[in-house]
Amino acid sequence: MKITGKNYIGEQLAGSGEVNFRTFNPTSNSENEPLFAEASYSEIDQAVELAWEAFKKYRTFSGARKSEFLNAIADEILNLGDALIDAYCQESGLPAGRAEGERGRTVFQLRSFADLVKEGSWVEASVDTALPEREPVPKPDLRKMLIPLGPVVVFGASNFPLAYSTAGGDTAAALAAGCSVIVKSHPMHAGTGELVASAIIKAARLTGMPNGVFSNLNSSGIEVGVQLVSHLKVKAVGFTGSIQGGRALLDLAAQREEPIPVFAEMGSVNPVVLLPGALKERGEKLAKQYAGSVTLGTGQFCTNPGLLLGIKGEELERFIQDLAQSIVEIEPSIMLHPNIVGAYERNKQKALAQEGLSVVAELTQDVPANFARQAVTTVEGSTFLKNTALHQEVFGPFTMVVQCEDASQLEEVVSRLEGQLTGTVITGKDELSGYSSLIAALQNRVGRIIYNGVPTGVEVCPSMVHGGPYPASTDSRFTAVGTYSIRRWARPFSFQDWPDELLPEELKNDNPLGIERKVNNVNTREEI
Amino acid sequence: MKITGKNYIGEQLAGSGEVNFRTFNPTSNSENEPLFAEASYSEIDQAVELAWEAFKKYRTFSGARKSEFLNAIADEILNLGDALIDAYCQESGLPAGRAEGERGRTVFQLRSFADLVKEGSWVEASVDTALPEREPVPKPDLRKMLIPLGPVVVFGASNFPLAYSTAGGDTAAALAAGCSVIVKSHPMHAGTGELVASAIIKAARLTGMPNGVFSNLNSSGIEVGVQLVSHLKVKAVGFTGSIQGGRALLDLAAQREEPIPVFAEMGSVNPVVLLPGALKERGEKLAKQYAGSVTLGTGQFCTNPGLLLGIKGEELERFIQDLAQSIVEIEPSIMLHPNIVGAYERNKQKALAQEGLSVVAELTQDVPANFARQAVTTVEGSTFLKNTALHQEVFGPFTMVVQCEDASQLEEVVSRLEGQLTGTVITGKDELSGYSSLIAALQNRVGRIIYNGVPTGVEVCPSMVHGGPYPASTDSRFTAVGTYSIRRWARPFSFQDWPDELLPEELKNDNPLGIERKVNNVNTREEI
Repeated sequence: MKITGKNYIGEQLAGSGEVNFRTFNPTSNSENEPLFAEASYSEIDQAVELAWEAFKKYRTFSGARKSEFLNAIADEILNLGDALIDAYCQESGLPAGRAEGERGRTVFQLRSFADLVKEGSWVEASVDTALPEREPVPKPDLRKMLIPLGPVVVFGASNFPLAYSTAGGDTAAALAAGCSVIVKSHPMHAGTGELVASAIIKAARLTGMPNGVFSNLNSSGIEVGVQLVSHLKVKAVGFTGSIQGGRALLDLAAQREEPIPVFAEMGSVNPVVLLPGALKERGEKLAKQYAGSVTLGTGQFCTNPGLLLGIKGEELERFIQDLAQSIVEIEPSIMLHPNIVGAYERNKQKALAQEGLSVVAELTQDVPANFARQAVTTVEGSTFLKNTALHQEVFGPFTMVVQCEDASQLEEVVSRLEGQLTGTVITGKDELSGYSSLIAALQNRVGRIIYNGVPTGVEVCPSMVHGGPYPASTDSRFTAVGTYSIRRWARPFSFQDWPDELLPEELKNDNPLGIERKVNNVNTREEI
Repeated sequence: MKITGKNYIGEQLAGSGEVNFRTFNPTSNSENEPLFAEASYSEIDQAVELAWEAFKKYRTFSGARKSEFLNAIADEILNLGDALIDAYCQESGLPAGRAEGERGRTVFQLRSFADLVKEGSWVEASVDTALPEREPVPKPDLRKMLIPLGPVVVFGASNFPLAYSTAGGDTAAALAAGCSVIVKSHPMHAGTGELVASAIIKAARLTGMPNGVFSNLNSSGIEVGVQLVSHLKVKAVGFTGSIQGGRALLDLAAQREEPIPVFAEMGSVNPVVLLPGALKERGEKLAKQYAGSVTLGTGQFCTNPGLLLGIKGEELERFIQDLAQSIVEIEPSIMLHPNIVGAYERNKQKALAQEGLSVVAELTQDVPANFARQAVTTVEGSTFLKNTALHQEVFGPFTMVVQCEDASQLEEVVSRLEGQLTGTVITGKDELSGYSSLIAALQNRVGRIIYNGVPTGVEVCPSMVHGGPYPASTDSRFTAVGTYSIRRWARPFSFQDWPDELLPEELKNDNPLGIERKVNNVNTREEI
């Protein structure tokens, strides 16, 4: 499978645009070979028009057919074999093991959504039968189910070239819902993106999907994304990335004549509350564990623990020293791209320049090109409360320990945080029950709360919430990970007094799909 | 129960503001007696701060306790007796029968939400148990449920002084979800609003709710609403009203540093497709039925059929003549307020001034003050397609018949409509199956589709969708009517590896509430 550098406008490869770019190999510190053509204005328009026409057909396809498509995508991704792993490593600097693991996650996500739509109950079918004799007016027959929104634009994440990119969570969920998808390919892994796109296109052909159900557009700057989000026939947007990028898309979508929903999963510092009893019991072990979590994947996870909150005292001091010692013992590692290392070093310096912040540990030795130097810093609770610049994420292997005066200041710090994906509580035996108002405050700022663990590691399952109050995500009422994320791309729809033979299968009296439905307010798989 | 003209800042009556106003009785064409004090800046801030503090407690209350509160509100509204009905009639011009019917609907809505939260399964609890032996990494225990967003601001509708106002659908749903509520009272029925607010406050006291769980703020202009929506501690907004008003709030909320969700249910012309066979079979009867639906409540329903779409021909011509004749035979009726009659007459004249629009029937005789004169107009399909001014709602007893050349033009008209709350199809025997692409196009523009009926009449039940693509509502993924509307005010939340004894009841192993949960992907009420 050769990388062509072109866009997929539906099944068609096209590259008439005049802007060209290359991806970068951080390991060799040089550009990769293939030359990519950014999608031109007319290619973008063509992709959306095709997506619109494809949507009209695809939205009517059964769960079984959509499931075949999703499973075929998973198969074709696996069929790409080493070519995909090679492109991934060349464009990210990440090791082959990580690439394989992420491919596994991507395939698992696709198959999870395939299972979900094949089973079919995700549409939340609900039936209220008529009461023609009701006084003063008869009650009509009403039947409700979720239906897809329309063409969805997906912006992949730089830090997950497979699992949250071209055929990642957003794409899988949107296709499962019955939406057509246009991916704005991430410029840092355009080759990986093209290979995955070729797998999706092949799967679409094999399973008889309409041309345009999927397109993949290259871009090096913001123009392609802006045009896509502004397009009249685009009905929703999925994004994973920076607060700045996500907010720009949210603003753009809000300013449209017809505003459209944007689900952006953005930054998070993932506060970790270290209770005194825990530090006393096992401070050294925790320091080792957190040194590992902060530097995992060179700190390039959205759930990286960038903020550790404790109460001043001997235990916390010792923990900070242990953490400092553990973290400098860890070998520095490579980041995804020179721009990302550059941003990390700039943001780190900006943080270090804040009054009252002390460096506890920082690698200063020479490192190979595109490697990041991890750092641990500390600050007083009162200083942290006064300076919101200290609340900002430093994307990379960086963390800050906030030393609070007491439990009450700790609670204040927590309640003043911006919205977060996760909050973690590290507690000693029988210690947590004394901190119920702190836990309540933390719960109010996050989407997921973790007990005695690390925030990194986001399980793909129905009970996962990956999202949270702004700016963790733009709409805390949804999640970006897990099957529940399909709800972002669907809306409820009611049929009133509609004849049984013209209803969709999900709502027919005899329940041919055997799905779980709410019938006159009772959950059942029975027919009516 | 005397109307004081003051605001409820939690339990406290306050009226220190300097802006005063009165409501208007359209029947007597004169101002009502009570003088209302618009909420001052500091009263607004106080109400939100109280709502925030109350939220911290109220969010932890059990479904059973919230249910007591909601039922007590219903009881106290009924206890207001005739004083409420009198205020309603004096402030709206609507008859006592309508007031009583709407009170019944309001009470029913409150009790429906009380039942919903008492039963408890609405939180969509989901549990994925741990797999500590899983390779390569153990699977943590994850448990998810819906939790409330925070203080919600509700803007009541002018056209439903009870059911979609102070203790209407938005308030009932938000309180049921566990949010505190601040109502920006509608200036046209501030007295009705104050009485209902007094019932809510009394119910809150009787059932031991925290002070600030509910506040009611008077306003005559836009200032109070703007301040509320901009307030840092307000976390969501509900609105029912005009596109202009809803859009302004949406824009304001989108521009906040922390954007918040706005659910606005706005305008709709509720297209009705009249298929030729139906007109042939029963055109005269349909004309009578639609004359009634267009003028019902002086056309002041958001589901009023303002657009009738047919295919040119003898049957359609005869239908138009029959409709014209039927509608002029209906006695004109009163509107809610001089401003609303004024807007109706202005918008009607603006529509009539559009090139190509013909008047088929219009009352021209003198009518009592604040009465509206119904009108039926008609236009060619091609003219309608060219001029989007003709697509706008004329709020009141007005409708427009679009005469399309053929089925294909009819489908084009449908697909070019703005988003709508409802779409109706009037069909003859065995006729509908020939119009599947038209139905698909209609489905794509609406939230509810009706077979051989009228769009007016919005049933309160789980299968209702009252909402739709923009501008019918600002987020088609939710509904404003029915118990499902609670989802607007809640977000999913995950607990990871959390100790059973500290989990909320909904997620504990032994399922003490006996609610329906998804446990390892299987729906069950069993314990774990």
